[in-house]
Formats: sequence, structure tokens, C-alpha cells
Amino acid sequence: MINKLTIIGIGLIGGSLARALRDAGYVREIIGYGRSIGNLQQAMELGVIDRAEVSLPDAVRGADMIVLAVPVGNMAEILNVLGPVLPDNSVVTDVGSVKGSVIATARPALGARFAHFVPGHPIAGTEQSGVAASLPDLFQRRRVILTPEPETDSKALARVRAMWEAAGAEVAMLPAADHDRILAVSSHLPHVLAYCLMDMVVRHDDHRAILENSTGGFRDTTRIAASDPVMWRDICLANRDALLDALRQYHADLGAFVEAVERGDGKWLCETFTRAKHARDGLNKKI
Amino acid sequence: MINKLTIIGIGLIGGSLARALRDAGYVREIIGYGRSIGNLQQAMELGVIDRAEVSLPDAVRGADMIVLAVPVGNMAEILNVLGPVLPDNSVVTDVGSVKGSVIATARPALGARFAHFVPGHPIAGTEQSGVAASLPDLFQRRRVILTPEPETDSKALARVRAMWEAAGAEVAMLPAADHDRILAVSSHLPHVLAYCLMDMVVRHDDHRAILENSTGGFRDTTRIAASDPVMWRDICLANRDALLDALRQYHADLGAFVEAVERGDGKWLCETFTRAKHARDGLNKKI
Repeated sequence: MINKLTIIGIGLIGGSLARALRDAGYVREIIGYGRSIGNLQQAMELGVIDRAEVSLPDAVRGADMIVLAVPVGNMAEILNVLGPVLPDNSVVTDVGSVKGSVIATARPALGARFAHFVPGHPIAGTEQSGVAASLPDLFQRRRVILTPEPETDSKALARVRAMWEAAGAEVAMLPAADHDRILAVSSHLPHVLAYCLMDMVVRHDDHRAILENSTGGFRDTTRIAASDPVMWRDICLANRDALLDALRQYHADLGAFVEAVERGDGKWLCETFTRAKHARDGLNKKI
Repeated sequence: MINKLTIIGIGLIGGSLARALRDAGYVREIIGYGRSIGNLQQAMELGVIDRAEVSLPDAVRGADMIVLAVPVGNMAEILNVLGPVLPDNSVVTDVGSVKGSVIATARPALGARFAHFVPGHPIAGTEQSGVAASLPDLFQRRRVILTPEPETDSKALARVRAMWEAAGAEVAMLPAADHDRILAVSSHLPHVLAYCLMDMVVRHDDHRAILENSTGGFRDTTRIAASDPVMWRDICLANRDALLDALRQYHADLGAFVEAVERGDGKWLCETFTRAKHARDGLNKKI
């Protein structure tokens, strides 16, 4: 049970967590902090938060749980302000899509209190943003990855784990470097591929005809190109090394497809498509 | 109204067309031809066809409408057998995803009767195959592109158009070369990208962890990698030149993303993501 929960950034993820914990009866009071007064007002009107604060020290005063739900690119700014005003007995966690960069910022910013910071990443979301898009069941049966460091306090870890479980999520643990390497392929790369395809179409001579004749496959493949550009710029920069490994591998693999089509190699294409199809069929069964 | 409809290949598309036309009361008798006895029996049991034939000359005897719904790679074989036995007054159309290659095969195979061949392509389908996956409403409000040649008979064209409209589709006309260039980007390229991503994951050291931690974006982006490998091998080979143009452009564009991430160019990434997002948001509004 959380007595006073402060959510820094009431967007899709922060708003959905607030709704889920309120529905679960797991929290007494929810304070929202954000830079956009309009968004905070909307969060109040929607009943997502009980009270809004525009001063970070005021927002976290007396909070036993503080969740950082801002874009990865804004974490440093928040952590540096948070460090000196962090209440005793509070636990801090975040929802950033990249863990190594957040940990590297949090360690000096929080000093001795870094032990009470539990890095986390809920693997959930839609291509939409903002509190109006938040959903109380966004985390139901979704995975949340926590990436504790050697100095992470075990009680703080248990409290964050219990919070996510109360929100309906399944919690898993990974070292931060593993998280960043895996998510570079399972999430960050697909986003770049979708943005790249959509941007190629925008600049194509047949732009209008391509969109008019787009298939269900095209629409599915490009759905995540509607995601927030600032958030994804930040993720690309924060997870640069792992993303580059994934991007370079994909670029080389796609080069092999180009060569196979050039030489009309039906055998290679069929074998490769078959291997991919088997793996994708397996993924369907797991859903 | 069609008196006797022969569908060559009772799979997802051929089966769905049969169901749609029957539901619309637009056809008296539906004959199915195919190489798989099991599939034909299933089509009979499901009531998709009235009668099955395993001899192509028997199947088309007396048919006023013949629909070729086999994979693009099997069109030549069918057209060469069909040419000499084509009944007078019959109209032939196909559903192939590539039009130039089918037309190049049909012209010599059908000889003087080529004027009664109307090349077509319904932009509809799922990643599934086979008559069991067929749906009577698969073509509702979906686009069907017809690509008549200069010698195409206008009455034959009108009959094929009326058939698709009876099945619920919206019919558009395009020159075959335009169709193939546009679909290379709007359909064929996304399939290759999805297969390539899925195959990269299969061969990755973190294979299991990537699939376990796959996001909704990953699942959407790779859905069409579950498509039939033989069908897509055939499409890649049949539309080789247009697909190569699209693949090479995408490969170069992705190279620009790699370079932007390498130099940490947040401005370039944000601008490009924003341009792509605007275009994708526009596509959502059209659905």
C-alpha cells in the first residue's frame, strides 16, 4: 500500500499507472507534477490525480513512492532537482525505455540515496501520448522489467515490485545492459524501421498513390511511426550503442535480401521467409 | 450476374470471393479447381464451392467467368493449359499481386483471347492462407485494382468490375507498370522488412529474450512475416525490378538513420520522426 504517490510526468504511462493503482485500492493520495499546466488540469478533471503541483520539491514532500514518468531525455534535469529534496523513507523508480543512461545519471544525482532508486521499464504503451490516452488496464499481464544495481536496497526493490504487481503487471529482473541490448532489437529497432518506411513514402514521387493503395500490412508495419518524435529521439540517443548494433545488423541483413532479389534467388528467399514465418507463428501462440 | 463461375485455386482470396458472390446472390454455380484434393474437399464441406474438379479443361467448360486465384508463380502453368481450352464468351481475370509479369505470360498463352483477360488485384488479405481462412466480407470496402491493356475488351472489363463491386469492393484502374511500382512500396517492401526483422531475431544470440520482451510495436511490425513464404518468394521474383528500386531506396534511407544515430544528431532524428508521424497520423484519419 502506498500512502502518498508522486508521479512526475502525467502522460500515457504515468496516468495509466495512477489509474491502475487507484482502481486496485493500492494508493491513498496521488500527486501529479508536470510542466504543462493544461495537462495537469486535464489529469485533475479526469480524476487521474488528486492534486497537481508545479514545484518539484512541493510535489515530492512526504511521498513514500516517487515515479519518474518523463521522457528519457528529461530524466537528468528531474533527477538533479530531485536529489537534494528527496524525502527520507521514499522510494524512487522510473519508467524509462533505456536503463543504462538513466542509471548513469541517477547515481551521482541521488548520491547516497541512489540505493533507494529502482530502475524500471514497463513494456506497455500505445503510439499515443498524454493523459487523455491513459488506460487503467494498460499494464494488465504486461511485463515490467526492473534493473536493480548492486547497491539497490532490497526493500525498495520489493516495494516497487509490489506496486507494479498491484497495477496488474508481471515483474521480471534483468541487468540494465541486457535490458538495453534486448530492447534495442525488440522495441527501438522496429520504431526506427517504421519511421524510416513512412518517411521514405512521404518523400516518394508516388506518395499519394502509395498511401491510397496501402495494405493492412503497410498500416500495421507503420503504426508505431505515429509515436512521439521527441520521446523516440531521446531513446535513440540514450541507447545509442545498443541501437547502433541492432541497426547495423539489420542494415547488413537487408543488404543480403537486396542481393538475393538481384540474383533472383528464389531458394534463398523461400528458406529465409520460411524461417521467419516459423518464428512469427510461434510468437502468435504465446499471446 | 454470373451463371457459372470457375475459381482456379480455392485459397484465402479465391474462397473469400466465392463466399462474397454467393452471399450477394450474384452467381448460380461455383466450380473450384485446385491441386490439393484435401483443400477442395474442405471447400465443398464449407459450402464455398458447389463442385470440385481436378481437371482444368473440365473445370472451365461452360464457365462465363474464370478467376485465377493461384500464387503468382503458378500463373504461367495455369495460363498455358487454359489457353487452348478457354470457352467462347468466357471472361478471365486474376488476383495476382504483380500485374506486369502476369500480363507478359497471359498475352502469348491466351493469344487472340487475351482481349478477354482482365488483369486484377484485390488489395485485401490477411497473413493467413487456405480456404479455412476465407471470409465473405474480406473485400467489403477494399480496393480492387484492374490494369487493363490497350487490347482489353471493354465488355470483359465491365463484367469483371461488376463482379468485384458485387463482392463489396471499390474498383480502381491503373496501368500495370504503375500498379507494380506503387505496390512494391505499399505492400511488397513492408513484407520484406517484416521477414528481415523476424529472421534477424531468429539468428540473434538473445533470440529468446527478445521474443519474451517483445512489444506491441514489434508484434505489429512483424505480423506479416507470418505470410506464406512461397507466395512472397513468387511476388519478389515477379516484381523484381520495382521491388529492387524500393528496397535500394529503403536501404539507403536506413543508412542515413544509422549515420544520424552515429553522430548523435537529435535534430535530424526529431525532424525525420516528426515528418513520418504527420504522414502516419494522416493515414489513420483516412481509415
